[in-house]
Amino acid sequence: MIPGYTIRRVSKDDYEGVIDILKVLTVVGDVSRNRFEEIVDYWDSIYLPGTSTRQHNPHVIVEDATGQIAATGNIILERKLIHDAGLCGHIEDIAVSKNHQGKSLGKFLIDKLTQVGLEAGCYKIILDCDPKNVPFYEKCGYTKAGIEMQIRRD
Amino acid sequence: MIPGYTIRRVSKDDYEGVIDILKVLTVVGDVSRNRFEEIVDYWDSIYLPGTSTRQHNPHVIVEDATGQIAATGNIILERKLIHDAGLCGHIEDIAVSKNHQGKSLGKFLIDKLTQVGLEAGCYKIILDCDPKNVPFYEKCGYTKAGIEMQIRRD
Repeated sequence: MIPGYTIRRVSKDDYEGVIDILKVLTVVGDVSRNRFEEIVDYWDSIYLPGTSTRQHNPHVIVEDATGQIAATGNIILERKLIHDAGLCGHIEDIAVSKNHQGKSLGKFLIDKLTQVGLEAGCYKIILDCDPKNVPFYEKCGYTKAGIEMQIRRD
Repeated sequence: MIPGYTIRRVSKDDYEGVIDILKVLTVVGDVSRNRFEEIVDYWDSIYLPGTSTRQHNPHVIVEDATGQIAATGNIILERKLIHDAGLCGHIEDIAVSKNHQGKSLGKFLIDKLTQVGLEAGCYKIILDCDPKNVPFYEKCGYTKAGIEMQIRRD
């Protein structure tokens, strides 16, 4: 834990804070409160893939003692056939507020999401990052595994 | 299309062929016929994320005229908040049988999965690959986007 900060699941009440912090990361665009609530409902409805018993919403926020959102991120679990029909975790959309940088919140968040994935049974957890962030993820225990390729609609 | 080959969704009848072809890629391990069928049922139950109306099992196989499985792959769709609550596609677990190499089946499969993702509305589609496969994915229209990092349980 980091003194003064707590981590919890995203809820429907987090609309402004979550939309605001994601702007650190990239274009958020047009997401109404209603659409946000629909998406949180969808996230809450996700089960551990390939099971019907354990719910698994892996979208978390870190907040300070005043309730201000300081960081967010999530881990998607993918049910594969390979590796004994294993689970692979994908960490996505890590954002730390500029107001809260320099407090190791990024590492705290990655450590927590990694723990969530390993406890769910993932045989591996992956994420894609900018080359300049490789040393940060190495400090979190990650190693280089390959090249991310993309194609975009626009 | 590639003459003599067709592409279709994975079905429960594909147990031996799919398990066999995935061994080209990595360790498959202990996946019983019953477990395979459970996983195909799970895949068949997936909806386009954040909707309750369009089913979306994105696991496909390419087969030859005799019904032999020549290639497999899938695209997972992730509902984000960023990019107007957009969809991001993740192409995973591409395998082409050694018996069918040299026929451009890999490119055929990637083109098809890319089309599935774009038609579903993805603003981008990503995949991770070994550095030696970058030129292949560039031929499929993909560009380098970042570094894949991983942590493994073992």
